[in-house]
Formats: sequence, C-alpha cells, structure tokens
Amino acid sequence: MDRQLIAQSFQDFRERLIATLEGLEAEVGSSARFSRKPWDRPGGGGGEMGLMHGQVFEKAGVNYSLVKGEFSEEFARSIPGAEEDRRFWASGVSVVIHPANPHVPAAHMNIRHLCTTKRWFGGGADLTPVYPDDSETSIFHEALKGACDAADPAYYPEFKAWCDRYFYLPHRDEPRGVGGIFFDQMATEDLVADHRFTLSVGEAFASVYEQLARAKMERPFSQAQRHDQLVKRGRYVEFNLLHDRGTLFGLKTGGNIEAILMSLPPMVSWP
Amino acid sequence: MDRQLIAQSFQDFRERLIATLEGLEAEVGSSARFSRKPWDRPGGGGGEMGLMHGQVFEKAGVNYSLVKGEFSEEFARSIPGAEEDRRFWASGVSVVIHPANPHVPAAHMNIRHLCTTKRWFGGGADLTPVYPDDSETSIFHEALKGACDAADPAYYPEFKAWCDRYFYLPHRDEPRGVGGIFFDQMATEDLVADHRFTLSVGEAFASVYEQLARAKMERPFSQAQRHDQLVKRGRYVEFNLLHDRGTLFGLKTGGNIEAILMSLPPMVSWP
Repeated sequence: MDRQLIAQSFQDFRERLIATLEGLEAEVGSSARFSRKPWDRPGGGGGEMGLMHGQVFEKAGVNYSLVKGEFSEEFARSIPGAEEDRRFWASGVSVVIHPANPHVPAAHMNIRHLCTTKRWFGGGADLTPVYPDDSETSIFHEALKGACDAADPAYYPEFKAWCDRYFYLPHRDEPRGVGGIFFDQMATEDLVADHRFTLSVGEAFASVYEQLARAKMERPFSQAQRHDQLVKRGRYVEFNLLHDRGTLFGLKTGGNIEAILMSLPPMVSWP
Repeated sequence: MDRQLIAQSFQDFRERLIATLEGLEAEVGSSARFSRKPWDRPGGGGGEMGLMHGQVFEKAGVNYSLVKGEFSEEFARSIPGAEEDRRFWASGVSVVIHPANPHVPAAHMNIRHLCTTKRWFGGGADLTPVYPDDSETSIFHEALKGACDAADPAYYPEFKAWCDRYFYLPHRDEPRGVGGIFFDQMATEDLVADHRFTLSVGEAFASVYEQLARAKMERPFSQAQRHDQLVKRGRYVEFNLLHDRGTLFGLKTGGNIEAILMSLPPMVSWP
C-alpha cells in the first residue's frame, strides 16, 4: 500500500475531525474556526498546524505532518530498521484538546505511519478529565475497545495496558488521566488491515469525544473548579516535557517547535 | 570546616532573604508572609519549604535542604568522588521568585555544598525579565561581579559565560533570561574561602534583587503586559522541565517533589 495514500487518508481524517470540533462550537453559537498554518521542515517535508481558540475548546490543536529525512546517528540506533540506513518517512495526525469547561475532559489522540527500511503504524487516544466520571470513562473505553475488537480481540487489553504504562507520572506516582489505548510499531503481515485499524481508532475517538464534550460543554462551573482545571493542566505539562517520547521525538528530529508544543495548555497554574 | 556549620550558615542566610522579601511586601502595605513546611526525605535528611503568595511576589519559593543518603549506581557514575563510595551529603538554599508585576524581573538563586568522598560548592543567580532593561541588567551583573571580584578576578567572566551556556533553551535557540553567574564543583585549596564566596553570592543577590524589585514593583501595567508575562513564564517552565540539571538531580535523588517543582510559575500561558 502506497505510503502517499496513507498520508492522504490521514489528511482526510484530520479534516473530518476539524469539522467535528468546529461543529460543537457552532452548537453553542460560537463562530470559532481553526486557523491553519503550513510549515516546512528543513531537511524534508512539513505539515499544517491547525489551532482553534473557541468557546467550547479553550485551545484545540489538530496537526498533520509528513516529514522525511535522515535520523541522527545516535537517534537512529533506537529506531527499528534505521540502524544501517538512517532515512525515514513519517506521517501522522496529532490532536490535543483543552476544553474551556472544567467538566469536559481534555483529550489527546495521535495516529502515525513510519517508514525506515521497515514500516509500521502507531497511535492512541486518551482522556484527561479534571473530575473522573466512571460513566464517561467507560463510554470512552468502550468506543476504543470497539475499534480494537473489530481488528483483533487481543488488541484492546494490550493497548489499554500500554496506555496506562505510558501516560504515567513517575515523579508524582500518578496517572496522567483515565487512560485509553496506545500502540506502536504495529506491523502485522497485513499492512492494509493495520492501516484500517489505525484510522478506525481516529474515527472512534472523534465520534466518542464529540459525544462526551457535548454532554458537559454547557454545564455551569465555579471559579474553584476553574482553579482545579488549571492545576490539573500543570500535570499535563509535566508529563509532556519530562516524559513524553512523542515530544522528544519531535525535538530530536528537527520538528516544528510550535507544532510540537501546541499540546501545552492555554492557561496553567502551579499554585 | 565542619559541614554542619556550612549548612547552618545557609539556613541563616535563608532567613535573611525571607525577611528581605517580606519587607518588600510590607512596603506596599501587604501583610503577606512565607508559609513554612518542613519535610523529611526518605533515606535521610530533609528541609523546609517556604512559599509566599504576595502582592509584590505572586509566588516566591525559598527552600532550605540538607539531604544525605546514597546515590543510585547509575547516577553515582556522573558525580565526582562517588564512583566507589556512593554516599552523599548535600545542603543548599534555592530561591525562585515570580513577581506579580510584569515589569519586575523573575529571578532564581541557588547556593549549595556537596560532599561525597570529595567536597565542593556550587551556586548562581540569574535574572529573567519579561522586558529586558539594559540598566537593570547591568546593575544586576555589577553586583554579582563585585562578589566574584572580591574572591578572584577570574571568576566573573568564567561564571557569567557558564550561566549563559546553562540557562539556554536549545529547542527555541533563545536564552532563558539576561544571565547572571553559575558555578559548580568549586573546590580550591581553601574551603573557607570557597564557602565565604558562595555565601557572598547569595548576599549580593539578595541585596541587588531587593533594589531592582523595589524600583518597579508599583509601576502600572496593562493586560497586554500581563499576557506577555504569562507567555514568558512558559519558557521558564520549558527550561526547567526539559533541560534543568537541578530539577533532574532532585527527581533522581528522591528529593521532595513539591520543593523541586516550587520553581514553576503560579500562572502560565501557552496561547
């Protein structure tokens, strides 16, 4: 399966997700839209950042990228298939949503395809509520489990556990949020199926997050709840800058700083 | 020179600095005072955090610590004198000041004494204004140069350059602030002189920062300037979590999370 077609499918998915998030803004009478900013990567490729400051979403970033080039010698050692030939090609969509309302959970989603002398998919989606809510958590997990089970019943338990391990703050001994799924270096014998599964994770996320955001986006909240939200966001920043391999990957491969750090919240407090 | 006496001199200096910062609050009619919180380190030692939320200082942290124990095998390899005997003893004062007024520069200061099978001092002070001001920068540097020159005329140029190298954000290719001095592993043949110098850096900082804060703490500012301040603070967070060896040292040696991350600003924005 041609990697350009995969990149195209990612780009199309991104447009649908943007339309979904803008649609929620429209539902509350906001005319907020994503502003788009293309960028070129020195060394090859580039992407388009999409950033929205809305009424429902205080800050939402939906980025698409297709980058290519050569890994540094040091970095190549940790990447499958790059030991001898350091060239790489990578395309992905990366989404971080910081809602205005403290009752609406923050969310993160990413799908990606990497090619060195090997090829694989990766991705995941997870939820970071200020106030965890069992029903919300279970609706979110059910949606991801649905996408997983359609591909392979072994996926969900494995990818859920991976997510729990990954989105964890060791220095505070606490999870970042209520989990989701995470997978990397997926390369079965069926590239088409892997691609279909990866896209379906994106679609499942878009649909369930729309439902969850809509359920609470107009719920009243207090200043104390806003404060809780700003503090919780601090944990998000700590994770992304201290531990996140995605951030590190971006910084080490000459990614776009603005796009990489778009995940950071619009307003945060360490009181 | 007994290390307990050195720790005591650090503790005394810390009390003077606390009095200085509380004094500035009193000058503007604020009754803000540091709240103090002792902590014990599992494995040995502990310290006292001091945190103030005032009118002049939106958040000021002045921490004292005396910790002892054993480095992890991996970490010991990077520490002088710890290769064969991994026990350590460390005492220090660490200060981070985030002023309320965007015209008043943020500041950081640290002095420390470390003992493994070797002993040495380290420390430094640096300034992070939102709006760099040549006259302010030069008053700050002159004060530190004074402390350096009294000990050794070679110190200031060396420690200034070290500070510029250290407080630098490679991912943004920008300095964190307008510099100051930074020194580490100072161990001349005269331990008493090294101790005197280290304390004098603390005293010079306390005195010059009092002067600089007083000069601008009542200057009017706009919402746009407040916004600039919140964005500049984001760079501070990025440095501390992505690059700061002090933060890493704390996290790797089981330091107190609350004390280590007290450096993070009370309110920050990544717009």
